Amino acid sequence: MRTLVGAALIALVLTQPAVVVQGEEQFRPNGLVVLMTDYGTDSIYMGIIKGAIYSKFMGARIDSITNDVPPFDIVAGAYLLVEAAGEYPKGTVFVTIVDPGVGTERKSIVVESKNGYCFVGPDNGLMTLAAEKFGIKQVRELTNKQLWRAETTSTVFHGRDIYGPVGASLASGVPVEEAGPALQTITKLDLKRSAVANGAASGTVMRTDPYGNIVSNITSADLQSLGIALGDSVNVSLGASQWTAPFKRTYAEVPEGERLVVVQSSGFVEFAINKGSLADAIKEGFGAKVTVSKAK
Amino acid sequence: MRTLVGAALIALVLTQPAVVVQGEEQFRPNGLVVLMTDYGTDSIYMGIIKGAIYSKFMGARIDSITNDVPPFDIVAGAYLLVEAAGEYPKGTVFVTIVDPGVGTERKSIVVESKNGYCFVGPDNGLMTLAAEKFGIKQVRELTNKQLWRAETTSTVFHGRDIYGPVGASLASGVPVEEAGPALQTITKLDLKRSAVANGAASGTVMRTDPYGNIVSNITSADLQSLGIALGDSVNVSLGASQWTAPFKRTYAEVPEGERLVVVQSSGFVEFAINKGSLADAIKEGFGAKVTVSKAK
Amino acid sequence: MRTLVGAALIALVLTQPAVVVQGEEQFRPNGLVVLMTDYGTDSIYMGIIKGAIYSKFMGARIDSITNDVPPFDIVAGAYLLVEAAGEYPKGTVFVTIVDPGVGTERKSIVVESKNGYCFVGPDNGLMTLAAEKFGIKQVRELTNKQLWRAETTSTVFHGRDIYGPVGASLASGVPVEEAGPALQTITKLDLKRSAVANGAASGTVMRTDPYGNIVSNITSADLQSLGIALGDSVNVSLGASQWTAPFKRTYAEVPEGERLVVVQSSGFVEFAINKGSLADAIKEGFGAKVTVSKAK
Repeated sequence: MRTLVGAALIALVLTQPAVVVQGEEQFRPNGLVVLMTDYGTDSIYMGIIKGAIYSKFMGARIDSITNDVPPFDIVAGAYLLVEAAGEYPKGTVFVTIVDPGVGTERKSIVVESKNGYCFVGPDNGLMTLAAEKFGIKQVRELTNKQLWRAETTSTVFHGRDIYGPVGASLASGVPVEEAGPALQTITKLDLKRSAVANGAASGTVMRTDPYGNIVSNITSADLQSLGIALGDSVNVSLGASQWTAPFKRTYAEVPEGERLVVVQSSGFVEFAINKGSLADAIKEGFGAKVTVSKAK
Repeated sequence: MRTLVGAALIALVLTQPAVVVQGEEQFRPNGLVVLMTDYGTDSIYMGIIKGAIYSKFMGARIDSITNDVPPFDIVAGAYLLVEAAGEYPKGTVFVTIVDPGVGTERKSIVVESKNGYCFVGPDNGLMTLAAEKFGIKQVRELTNKQLWRAETTSTVFHGRDIYGPVGASLASGVPVEEAGPALQTITKLDLKRSAVANGAASGTVMRTDPYGNIVSNITSADLQSLGIALGDSVNVSLGASQWTAPFKRTYAEVPEGERLVVVQSSGFVEFAINKGSLADAIKEGFGAKVTVSKAK
Repeated sequence: MRTLVGAALIALVLTQPAVVVQGEEQFRPNGLVVLMTDYGTDSIYMGIIKGAIYSKFMGARIDSITNDVPPFDIVAGAYLLVEAAGEYPKGTVFVTIVDPGVGTERKSIVVESKNGYCFVGPDNGLMTLAAEKFGIKQVRELTNKQLWRAETTSTVFHGRDIYGPVGASLASGVPVEEAGPALQTITKLDLKRSAVANGAASGTVMRTDPYGNIVSNITSADLQSLGIALGDSVNVSLGASQWTAPFKRTYAEVPEGERLVVVQSSGFVEFAINKGSLADAIKEGFGAKVTVSKAK
């Protein structure tokens, strides 16, 4: 999987608008610095990066989307970021770090989005989906060391040394333009979307959750185009398992312990067991292939 | 266990006072929005609900009791809530979500307590013990959609769509009365208390902790009524295990690796191993039956 | 290990300066109360201590280094504290709790450091390395009960009853001197440093991380004194395993799945697998013995 991801890295040329497009929002910092990393929920790295942020901007309000992104997994991180970021108010700075290439030639960037967010982190594709969803207003390479941590810069912890402090600087009101020179491109992952063909929708598992629910990248629109309506039976093939389950509004509409198909809160198709863990039951997770069709 | 809990759901009629009773405290928000959920410590759902709260009230100060309530377990959540909530200052809004019935006909409510807290969440019994301990001043059903998330409401994530935003609204100063119409009842769990009979106190395990200590709902008063004093030996029967251990003030009063009985910080009887994990040693946990008596 | 730690507890006499030494910084609270405990990342104890802190000082800004210190492990905690604390701004109050001796005769203290921090917790050696690194300006025993939790004090949860509230009090501006009488000593652990002899550096594992990297207390200076330069091959003996790996600047300088030696962000020698978990591969962790030498 990781090899495939590496191979899928492609650079897209972005057209920089000469003037602010109508309807775009200015980034005006609201003080929030919101982390999403693979540092581990409560690891020492979290304690360190938060200290580095406060040291740069004592007024920072630090919070997190999650720091439990699977280690090194840029694709998983890209999905998690785009699912959560949009809930935050305009003016939020996101510090997003899944960075297996730390210390190599990959760039460090900030993306200001068209809806008034900033995303700070390595330019390795992690921001692919967020950039698509929110639009790119400008990209800057993080070369201005005055916004970095005051002390020496390590080769292995750019969260502490660069991303945290730059995020804090932006949250404190430093203009995005001061982060460094403009870039015309960001690195994007070539992520597959779901597809509908021959009476079936196919996709992949984007994530599981602590209940054991399994979320795919198949959309509610895909179900609609297959003529699958609430109450219909759905044939599911997921990884090595196949089953048929009803399409329901919510979990408790099937008896405890039974399977269902549901549209989750971001509009994606989710597979679940009422009050049980489907992920444990079928031992499948991130990256597994999924196909759904209407049962006859 | 969960079936039993479901069966134990009963509705109690609450008498609403026509005027504020002497000695009650007014809820005056202090800005804190404190979460207790089964979303998982650092899951994407935490990242999302926090964004939804900030989007409703940028000044919210978000913190958590715990988001590691066992999935779907309303009884476990009720115990955890009542143990921690009382430590928080008056004016705190608690957003409490263990909601296996999300999207069904169960109501969504806010309980204003007599000591100046608000509890926001599903009306499924989760607030049973907190309501008993702090007293109910008023209950409102959450029908005012102006306090909800601005965008569409899902059938499966009412934390994001309703409870988080309503909690944020109350923390921002929206009067509790604006949440929706008054209710006369909340759903309560019929939770068993400890009992003393025939020279023994019996109860159940309320929780274990990260050290492997096991906390029961037997109280220090129960020990007293059995004539058990510090230094006495206590016969313990817990799940499938039996042993005798001394009743001590604190862990280090027995040698490393040995068992003891102690009254923990909320006044409940706890079973422990000094610098060891009793839960690992006897493989027992939440819901197990416990009996203690004075050893001859 | 724990027995050895207990045996290694020694009391060092500290000379209290009669006047403030030139270059010392005054502790001026910045409002941050930063926790480091073995309470467990998201346990109910975290929910409780945070409530107790807010109740003492509603303006407290609570954050954490980590609350996932291995249970009861004072040595592991001492290493984690000193690695992270220095990143925080001056004026931060650290509440540091790994306290297997809670409720016994061990003292409760606050250490004001020469660089403007306060450390609040049990006097059991947990602050050893932080006190060495930042210098001790004064030590006070926590006897002033006005700074404690208002309600009764338990024998088993001094985080809630003493350390949290005292930390909050100091963060709110209560002078350190009001915490209690001055002490001349703190308890210190006799922690072994790395050593270089006979062409090899030897030390112990200080911690692993969520990626499975293994961090030792061998320093970059040790490597230098052995004549080991970037690109050189290094013989490693760690616990029961031996291998040879290159000394590199960062992970991605070796192929995926291969081992390397790297200097991590605090200047210590770390052993890793690029995009893999060395800790899982060799089943070693905290406390294991390590030796490195230059490969011929």
